Amino acid sequence: MGISSNRVENFECRETVLTIPAEAMLPPPPQQEEEIHKVCLPPKQTTFQKLKHKLSEVFFPDDPFYKFQNQSWLRKVILGLQSLFPVFEWGPGYTLALFKSDIVSGLTIASLAIPQGISYAKLANLPPIIGLYSSFVPPLIYSILGSSRHLAVGPVSIASLVMGSMITEAVSYNEQPTLYLKLAFTATFFAGVFQASLGLLRLGFVIDFLSKATLVGFMAGAAVIVSLQQLKGLLGISHFTSKMQLIPVMSSVFHRKDEWSWQTIVLGFIFLLILLGTRHISIKKPKLFWISAAAPLTSVILSTLLVFLLREKAPGISVIGHLPKGINPPSLNMLYFTGPQLALAIKTGIITGILSLTEGIAVGRTFAGLKNYQVDGNKEMMAIGFMNMAGSFSSCYVTTGSFSRSAVNYNAGAQTAISNVVMSAAVLITLLFLMPLFHYTPNFILAAIIITAVIGLIDYQAACRLWKVDKLDFVACVCSFFGILFISVPMGLAIAVGVSVFKILLHVTRPNTIVLGNISGTQIFQNLDRYRDASRVPSFLILAIESPIYFANSTYLQERILRWVREEEERVKATNDSPLKCVILDMTAVTSIDTSGIETVCELRKMLMQKSLQFVLANPGGNTMEKLHKSDALERFEFNGLYLSVGEAVKDISSLWKRLP
Amino acid sequence: MGISSNRVENFECRETVLTIPAEAMLPPPPQQEEEIHKVCLPPKQTTFQKLKHKLSEVFFPDDPFYKFQNQSWLRKVILGLQSLFPVFEWGPGYTLALFKSDIVSGLTIASLAIPQGISYAKLANLPPIIGLYSSFVPPLIYSILGSSRHLAVGPVSIASLVMGSMITEAVSYNEQPTLYLKLAFTATFFAGVFQASLGLLRLGFVIDFLSKATLVGFMAGAAVIVSLQQLKGLLGISHFTSKMQLIPVMSSVFHRKDEWSWQTIVLGFIFLLILLGTRHISIKKPKLFWISAAAPLTSVILSTLLVFLLREKAPGISVIGHLPKGINPPSLNMLYFTGPQLALAIKTGIITGILSLTEGIAVGRTFAGLKNYQVDGNKEMMAIGFMNMAGSFSSCYVTTGSFSRSAVNYNAGAQTAISNVVMSAAVLITLLFLMPLFHYTPNFILAAIIITAVIGLIDYQAACRLWKVDKLDFVACVCSFFGILFISVPMGLAIAVGVSVFKILLHVTRPNTIVLGNISGTQIFQNLDRYRDASRVPSFLILAIESPIYFANSTYLQERILRWVREEEERVKATNDSPLKCVILDMTAVTSIDTSGIETVCELRKMLMQKSLQFVLANPGGNTMEKLHKSDALERFEFNGLYLSVGEAVKDISSLWKRLP
Repeated sequence: MGISSNRVENFECRETVLTIPAEAMLPPPPQQEEEIHKVCLPPKQTTFQKLKHKLSEVFFPDDPFYKFQNQSWLRKVILGLQSLFPVFEWGPGYTLALFKSDIVSGLTIASLAIPQGISYAKLANLPPIIGLYSSFVPPLIYSILGSSRHLAVGPVSIASLVMGSMITEAVSYNEQPTLYLKLAFTATFFAGVFQASLGLLRLGFVIDFLSKATLVGFMAGAAVIVSLQQLKGLLGISHFTSKMQLIPVMSSVFHRKDEWSWQTIVLGFIFLLILLGTRHISIKKPKLFWISAAAPLTSVILSTLLVFLLREKAPGISVIGHLPKGINPPSLNMLYFTGPQLALAIKTGIITGILSLTEGIAVGRTFAGLKNYQVDGNKEMMAIGFMNMAGSFSSCYVTTGSFSRSAVNYNAGAQTAISNVVMSAAVLITLLFLMPLFHYTPNFILAAIIITAVIGLIDYQAACRLWKVDKLDFVACVCSFFGILFISVPMGLAIAVGVSVFKILLHVTRPNTIVLGNISGTQIFQNLDRYRDASRVPSFLILAIESPIYFANSTYLQERILRWVREEEERVKATNDSPLKCVILDMTAVTSIDTSGIETVCELRKMLMQKSLQFVLANPGGNTMEKLHKSDALERFEFNGLYLSVGEAVKDISSLWKRLP
Repeated sequence: MGISSNRVENFECRETVLTIPAEAMLPPPPQQEEEIHKVCLPPKQTTFQKLKHKLSEVFFPDDPFYKFQNQSWLRKVILGLQSLFPVFEWGPGYTLALFKSDIVSGLTIASLAIPQGISYAKLANLPPIIGLYSSFVPPLIYSILGSSRHLAVGPVSIASLVMGSMITEAVSYNEQPTLYLKLAFTATFFAGVFQASLGLLRLGFVIDFLSKATLVGFMAGAAVIVSLQQLKGLLGISHFTSKMQLIPVMSSVFHRKDEWSWQTIVLGFIFLLILLGTRHISIKKPKLFWISAAAPLTSVILSTLLVFLLREKAPGISVIGHLPKGINPPSLNMLYFTGPQLALAIKTGIITGILSLTEGIAVGRTFAGLKNYQVDGNKEMMAIGFMNMAGSFSSCYVTTGSFSRSAVNYNAGAQTAISNVVMSAAVLITLLFLMPLFHYTPNFILAAIIITAVIGLIDYQAACRLWKVDKLDFVACVCSFFGILFISVPMGLAIAVGVSVFKILLHVTRPNTIVLGNISGTQIFQNLDRYRDASRVPSFLILAIESPIYFANSTYLQERILRWVREEEERVKATNDSPLKCVILDMTAVTSIDTSGIETVCELRKMLMQKSLQFVLANPGGNTMEKLHKSDALERFEFNGLYLSVGEAVKDISSLWKRLP
């Protein structure tokens, strides 16, 4: 065996038997001493191989083609079809029993989807009928393409709110209804294109940047804004701001007191209380989910009847009015690819696309987790994307999987995407025959339905948990909440994503450095602050750096390490300990290094050498070793201080000191 | 002694002697077995203590007040003065010998500073005299405040170019000279304010985000643009674009062929070749640095004489013309704090401020490194900031430490900042008495001086090194190069910073996961791919995650780990190895975790339990442990799989299996 003066010339170590270099002038170590292992470079790869590996990790981390390996030609075609159209996967095994469950759940969600569809369309400043169109075509497409069995597809509150607020900033529906519709369909088209291309290009990780913390704040902010906006319907105000921020909405409410209609207020708040009550019951007893599921449609029917009967006595209650019969008209000719508003349509499409994707994927994953099946994120993105593209051709606006309706779907026993088909059929019947019945449906009931639906988005318990566990996550949450409340939806989102990214950068810019001590009787070196049975190794300062060494932190790390050394020297002086002779940098957590980082390491070595201190790296990672090697940093500084572990470094260096007093 | 079923109730471990919980139903382990250590939580800290610690790490990593500890009151005042005005530190020990060195070096850099000052002012589209003003006041201020002994202060090419290009986009000097001057001084003022506040608020790390890679590309791009712009002077073109991008500059050159003046071209290129030749000599033989140092002034004198003599025969050669005598006029009244261009002035100030700060600090650190003294980044920022604020009151534009002149200063033997004072004195004499002599100085010589000065910024060797060591650093470099060449200076910078930040995010979004094996006879677990003598531990899959677990990578990590498990199971099946029973996650490099990360860990545990696999964490960091604890993730999932090291985990779990067949 033998000690290694880890010289750089022979980095490739294939065997454990190490050769003693001829120039080793040191006396041979005692034979019973344990072997010291060399630090190896990673196996050589060409730039192309590395790029290929990196790209496959970035785009294909789940190795989507593994199923196709070693399969016959026919089987590959079938597998390909199945992965493109999940309907081929579960379709052949579909039974009557499953169909019975799907009919029940499909009808249940239809009873929610019809009133919610009408309401959410109003949230997006669109005609109510668009909400029903959007509950008809997209669910059919999804049932063929989607891989979630419980997702209930249709318009959702957040995407409706964002689309409405963004388009209304430029165009008013009341003044230019056709242009507004064109922009809405075009934005839907771009949302679909964006979603599908995220899936196709396997860039699904983009939505990961909307962290949960951000979403909690964002959802809560949106829910508050949406609820306050519903005061328009609940109070019967006819002139209301089109802005989405807290201040103009509240000033609209209080500057229009003359428009408040007491009949609307009384009826509106009664129905709101009923709806909130049913919601509360279903939360307390999840088995009674059907109460809150049935409540919206029942309330619509009751309130419509009531308003119809009172139409002479209380003519001030505003109603939906005439709705055209018939299925979705084609809207390909409404798409808008030139002109000054194109940029707005694209921007709106991308933002609503991201938001609806985030909701859809999260909902799909949640229910897949409950039933133990997998939802492939990239495939879901394509499904949702194609569904929205198809929607934009057939007078639908942005749709995705709704959390509340999917929960009802799940509780009502949905088994496959057929429940979406059943829901579509119910919507179809409504569109063909029942539209005139909605003539007297009052606007206040739509407002009450929206408030009941969005109130659940305010998850203050989640916010408390964030505060408890991670203060910076809480800050991101609060920023997105107030951002959407006081500035605007896109700015709120941008601020929240900014805070999340800042958090990552802060961690990289100011990484932890910790002092390690040995846990006696072991080769384990641990944080001195945390482990009382860890103790300092005399004459050594062992520092662990807890981050990659990058341009963003190299200056800091250099200063900080020099300060540790200074403080250790002062401590040694004050306690009359044995003087500091060697600084070991535990590089285990230094998972990457860049050119600035390499310079810092070299610079540190130089500065510590001037103080007559040895400077040694322990367990540098493959990536780090490779870069130190390529940059000639090892050779240039005659780097002979590389060890595989802190333990071996301490053992080897102390035995050297013993032999060379 | 005793094995621990690491239950969660008693996390606080103060002693190594572990108690065996009463409910431990397992047979006691053999007594000779080594102790298994518990994972401890970090010592408890209140939120306030944590915040204080975090803030002190962010803002005071160098512990700037340590010098003041345990000092007398008087000593504290003296130390305070010295740290505010470094002149008090070196001033008292100043000797005649030092002064002699400083005189020589000061005069040497003055001979460079005068022609460069005039030239760089032209680069910023400012009157040449402003360049001399800027070489007079700021060096005096710096000599009192600055802590570098070798920095030669004055206008520099990059900041001049950027200021010129940014202001010219809005205001033309030829059309509105007063407004242009006002904007330049105001931008200088804001640059100073920004620099000083970065220093005061200890936010110096902001400039770290301009990584070296970015700067290499940026400098090269700027040098190319600046050199091409000088074709105006070298070819004698009078109508030239004010734009800074490659395409308009080149089209200006070739669409104005009728304005080319052959006398200017001949003389200009002769002098350019002479200057480049002297530069080449000085690079080859650093001792002959004085040749390139003296060349610009000599060329100015020679060319001025020549043009004066030829003034009748070649009247087409454009010259500087009349320059007013006298020292800097006050310019406080020129500062511009209202009006439509204020935003531009602030933006220009911030960008030139960052760029000049980066250059100044880098130059100061380089020469401090060569002479082994420290330059405090935050203090330097304040010095440069106050110098620019003072400059903006006295008709100076943005100044900083110039790399080329500082190198000459260093080579000429400068010892202290007094060399800057000597240079100022020389500039003062020039301003007072010698200005008329520059009347016939031709513009082509200024162009030649600028080209010679900036050509050194094109560091293609550094770019090659980047390519060799770090491909993504090279991409950042190329992006900033082409960004500045084809788009604009601020966009080029923004793109390059974006690429650098993207690199950090990519590392976090797609972290490495590596499979570890045991190096036989040791407790060391290392990368199986890298170490041939590492071997798999049967029935275990040991994965090391090389990054914090964040919202940005939690989905990826979950998928990736499940894929590792799937692949391991397939491998085991194919090779008839002992079946997989336990997955160990080595958390050493997981330096941080957020709420999404915690969910991922819990989710993974659930999914692996469904596969009847044990899931164990090894060496979770303090931060991670604390968050797992606070989020109740440990309790909720009855987490009893925490070990201090992979070695202990393997040992303990295998011994459990032996006892429970």
